[in-house]
Amino acid sequence: MEKNRITVEIYGNTYNMVGLESVEHMRLVAKTVDRRMRELKSKNPSLDSIQLAVLTAVNAVNEQLLLEEELRKLKD
Amino acid sequence: MEKNRITVEIYGNTYNMVGLESVEHMRLVAKTVDRRMRELKSKNPSLDSIQLAVLTAVNAVNEQLLLEEELRKLKD
Repeated sequence: MEKNRITVEIYGNTYNMVGLESVEHMRLVAKTVDRRMRELKSKNPSLDSIQLAVLTAVNAVNEQLLLEEELRKLKD
Repeated sequence: MEKNRITVEIYGNTYNMVGLESVEHMRLVAKTVDRRMRELKSKNPSLDSIQLAVLTAVNAVNEQLLLEEELRKLKD
């Protein structure tokens, strides 16, 4: 399966993304992370970039684990 | 609904987590983020902490969006 490669900007830094998903999906993911970091910053101005990124990761992993659990139950 | 509050360590920094989920679930989320950042670091030693955290957020948001799509289809 062919991999897609794109360059995105997230919270002022440039990242190379590589993935099996479509370029549109990868751009949406990057945009979502950027937006969530900015939303967190506006609610908590004292947080620095690493704290914003870690808390964005925490929220997304939380959602991921809850969704995996919900899917498991639906498939049972 | 009562909120739980815990203090966790992720990649060497301390974070206060607040959530409706159980303390066990919140600890698992923090541990997962910490582990993924360390795994990324071992594969890409040149990445700094913010890059590691942003890429961990990117991967988790990617999973979250794919799972939401899968759930939507299952519920249709």
